[in-house]
Amino acid sequence: MASGAQSPVVGIGDVNFDRETDVVVVGSGAAGLSAALAALADGAEVVLLEKAPTLGGTTRKSSAFAWYPNHLGLQAAGVVDEKDDALRYMARLSQPDAYDPASPTLGLEPWRHELLESFYDNAAVAAEALHEADVESIHLAEMSDYFSDLPENKTPQGRTLRPKTRDGEPGTGVEFVDQGAEAVQARGGEILTEHSVESVVTDEEGRVVGVLARTPEGQVAIGARGGVVFGSGGFAQNQHRLADHMAAPILGTCAAIGNTGDFLDIAEALGAPLRNMTYPWMTLLPLEWALEHDPEVKSLFHPPGDSMLFVNGAGRRTMNEKGPYNEMAQMFQRWDPRQARYPELLQFMVWDQGTQDLHANERPANPIRPTGHPAPHVVRGDTLDDLAAALTARVEELEDRVPGLYIEADFGANLKAAVERFNEGARQARDLDFERGEAPIEVFFNEMFTGGIRDERNPLLFPLRDAGPYYATIIVPAALDTKGGPPIDRDSRVLRADGTPISGLYGAGNCVASPAGKAYWAAGGTVGPAVVFGYVAGRKAAAGVPAQPGAAA
Amino acid sequence: MASGAQSPVVGIGDVNFDRETDVVVVGSGAAGLSAALAALADGAEVVLLEKAPTLGGTTRKSSAFAWYPNHLGLQAAGVVDEKDDALRYMARLSQPDAYDPASPTLGLEPWRHELLESFYDNAAVAAEALHEADVESIHLAEMSDYFSDLPENKTPQGRTLRPKTRDGEPGTGVEFVDQGAEAVQARGGEILTEHSVESVVTDEEGRVVGVLARTPEGQVAIGARGGVVFGSGGFAQNQHRLADHMAAPILGTCAAIGNTGDFLDIAEALGAPLRNMTYPWMTLLPLEWALEHDPEVKSLFHPPGDSMLFVNGAGRRTMNEKGPYNEMAQMFQRWDPRQARYPELLQFMVWDQGTQDLHANERPANPIRPTGHPAPHVVRGDTLDDLAAALTARVEELEDRVPGLYIEADFGANLKAAVERFNEGARQARDLDFERGEAPIEVFFNEMFTGGIRDERNPLLFPLRDAGPYYATIIVPAALDTKGGPPIDRDSRVLRADGTPISGLYGAGNCVASPAGKAYWAAGGTVGPAVVFGYVAGRKAAAGVPAQPGAAA
Repeated sequence: MASGAQSPVVGIGDVNFDRETDVVVVGSGAAGLSAALAALADGAEVVLLEKAPTLGGTTRKSSAFAWYPNHLGLQAAGVVDEKDDALRYMARLSQPDAYDPASPTLGLEPWRHELLESFYDNAAVAAEALHEADVESIHLAEMSDYFSDLPENKTPQGRTLRPKTRDGEPGTGVEFVDQGAEAVQARGGEILTEHSVESVVTDEEGRVVGVLARTPEGQVAIGARGGVVFGSGGFAQNQHRLADHMAAPILGTCAAIGNTGDFLDIAEALGAPLRNMTYPWMTLLPLEWALEHDPEVKSLFHPPGDSMLFVNGAGRRTMNEKGPYNEMAQMFQRWDPRQARYPELLQFMVWDQGTQDLHANERPANPIRPTGHPAPHVVRGDTLDDLAAALTARVEELEDRVPGLYIEADFGANLKAAVERFNEGARQARDLDFERGEAPIEVFFNEMFTGGIRDERNPLLFPLRDAGPYYATIIVPAALDTKGGPPIDRDSRVLRADGTPISGLYGAGNCVASPAGKAYWAAGGTVGPAVVFGYVAGRKAAAGVPAQPGAAA
Repeated sequence: MASGAQSPVVGIGDVNFDRETDVVVVGSGAAGLSAALAALADGAEVVLLEKAPTLGGTTRKSSAFAWYPNHLGLQAAGVVDEKDDALRYMARLSQPDAYDPASPTLGLEPWRHELLESFYDNAAVAAEALHEADVESIHLAEMSDYFSDLPENKTPQGRTLRPKTRDGEPGTGVEFVDQGAEAVQARGGEILTEHSVESVVTDEEGRVVGVLARTPEGQVAIGARGGVVFGSGGFAQNQHRLADHMAAPILGTCAAIGNTGDFLDIAEALGAPLRNMTYPWMTLLPLEWALEHDPEVKSLFHPPGDSMLFVNGAGRRTMNEKGPYNEMAQMFQRWDPRQARYPELLQFMVWDQGTQDLHANERPANPIRPTGHPAPHVVRGDTLDDLAAALTARVEELEDRVPGLYIEADFGANLKAAVERFNEGARQARDLDFERGEAPIEVFFNEMFTGGIRDERNPLLFPLRDAGPYYATIIVPAALDTKGGPPIDRDSRVLRADGTPISGLYGAGNCVASPAGKAYWAAGGTVGPAVVFGYVAGRKAAAGVPAQPGAAA
């Protein structure tokens, strides 16, 4: 649906441009900054428009790790990351039911294969373009891909870069965005915040030649001689779109608060289809953080604690709590065909004083808060029975607001049995049911987030104490952001339903259809493609600027 | 993508109509026949176009059970089926994660609620309109809804009608379609087969005023003074669309062979969005039938046999084999986050000589064929070890064609353990793991399809014999058809992305967005809404015919 009275597509005849530039970029996250820098590097004049008062969108909130096959850091280290191998790894996870190593497209839909090829082909140069613009990074040579032990993964470690502060320390999305914006401005690009682009302007041939932006001072019309690049993020903040498109329930999001999918309305009005709409980039959140809609909420990538387990509303343990977040969230979405409900949709994360002592800290993503710090999302009990009673009371408070939240009468008894079985395994340093601690990425994450290791045999497991107190919080599946939208081609051109490009219109990042399907290949599998397709889009849009009369060739 | 050179939308300026009529109906299944009859009953001239050489589409292949809340048969029997109750049952299953009995829309997206209301409001009159046109039916007063024991279901039995032969016997889709087509022609409607509608014609204001149909004799342009009604079926025969839109893998279909989603191309080109694209009407098929693409293949609604079980490629039993087919298929789609695959996607249905003797018959949907009849999809072994070896050989033959097909080295050992545990439960007349035989619909289906009952305590369970031979076939999730497309409103008008109706264009059945979500409420939950929205569309299109100069008022 259109988000206001303004039509998402406006003909040039109805518009007087307030100003014109070569390339308009919409959005200041990874895709937009990369596009702006690429267009500037090719000599284009660039105006970058950001809907929010602050820059960076979801990228700013993120760790801004970025995954690039065959990047220069790998090459410099002598690591071989062949195109065919990298494509096989990506394809294997992007369409796992169709993956066929003998097929020319590896079994993928042709558009997905084309985009994965373009991603690989442009990854190293796009990453290097950021580096050349002084957007700094650290090569995480030891970082495992999320499926590093799949036979299709021939480069299981080292494809991820993370931001670096100006002091040379490990950085996050804040540094990525600040350095990127600084670079755009240093190269003459103009950045305007509180410019919400809700319409594109088309000429008589249907070419996109500008945008209309809503600002606190009224509407502004900006012409774009070379093209418009959307890097405006997904639709995870749009409840109607989520209800219409998601394959299964998502109860929260870490996406920037403005990510309401404005570009989807524009794309649909331009006759572009929507693709890859069913699965978001998935993660986890404490329920009460999700309900707060705090714009600063951070993803629970890796639930901390060795003496910690998840149980469902029946008090039963049903999953490995330490897998890659995108995969864990899908475990929450299991459908019970007899009861016609999602019985694992809300999980109770339970820990003891040992984990509380070891893992409590003030990291915003950590639900285990130091004693004395506010933790309204945490329920406490002196015994497991007390904890069950306290959780039952909490569920009663929340259940009107959260369809699907439940806790059964025998929750306490089952919880005690679940803890007993968990402890039995932990004493043997193994998970009797769900292989916790056996995947390389779990061990890597544990080292990254842990407060300390108590059992070297399996650092991810430790028995809960027989005596309380015990703690719990409710965890739900969430979206970092969505990854569906109109299709693009290898040149980041937005395509119509008939496969023809919409002249003058480019897209990158979470506002267009990702070739990833439901896959999350590795840390930075979100930001990497956003940077790469943004880079391609920026260059192509710059190349679309007509030669000016009288300008030097 | 457009399916040919012809654009899906053609302006009136480029067309000379070969003929004109009041209402053009596209498709001759339940939706199309209902629309044609309704328009004829309101005095309109009707031309019905069918893509295939034969009439009836997927409806003809189906049992053509049809589910109508509060139909006249229920009313005559004194059964109360209140609107609020019926809506709650439908809503509870259509958006189970959002269902909220206290919400004005029951927690549903408003469009879904509007369509469910329209379905209820028009169900009785639409069913009666078929009856008045001599399309005959039998009231299945004892037939259970698929979730008859949900607390939200206040009318758990009797909402389903099935076709009746002219001799008064229970009929199928063949009778439904033959009687419907006969009625259309008896009322002056014209039916043209081998007319494949791939474009609509629009006037200067964007109103749909006709269609272009491809025929063996070339293209025909047909004007529609009142409107065009699409009842042209889903996209289950379009592999690209399935790959782009399905939430999880579907490996076969029972849809009419022409159901390639032609209307989706038209809708997208008209600026209509696509909704409810992620879940089809799900069922099961033997793998080898699915691979044959036999246009006559029939759905395996209820796998026969008491001494019969399913195991996955590891030889482990993971599900109740007798649940409603739409729900069982979703069990096949379980994602394994550690292995990054769908380990239950292909199941081995295993039975013994007892089930072979009791349940073999020539029903086209039954994979258990009488001894001596061709059954190339069945593998046989004198012992369970022999069966495991034969299945391993079969998997080796097929695995190049079927990504995801696997059988593990310890399959045989695990199969024997699974049979032993199944038998242990069967001797006690209960399923130790998956509640087989406990839902009312399972018992109902068993009575409908069974060859005989061996244990009255639980007719769905019986131990497999200790001695062979044993039999097996491979089962996959399949689609009866899809149920996504452009949205319609309560008047069956097709809507643009901005929610405005496209003048002159109506839709019903599997070619438009179903309000059902992923739900399958009951037998006939497919055909019922197709008939009802077809009926509404036919009446509205007839009402759109302009008064003719000189015609009687």
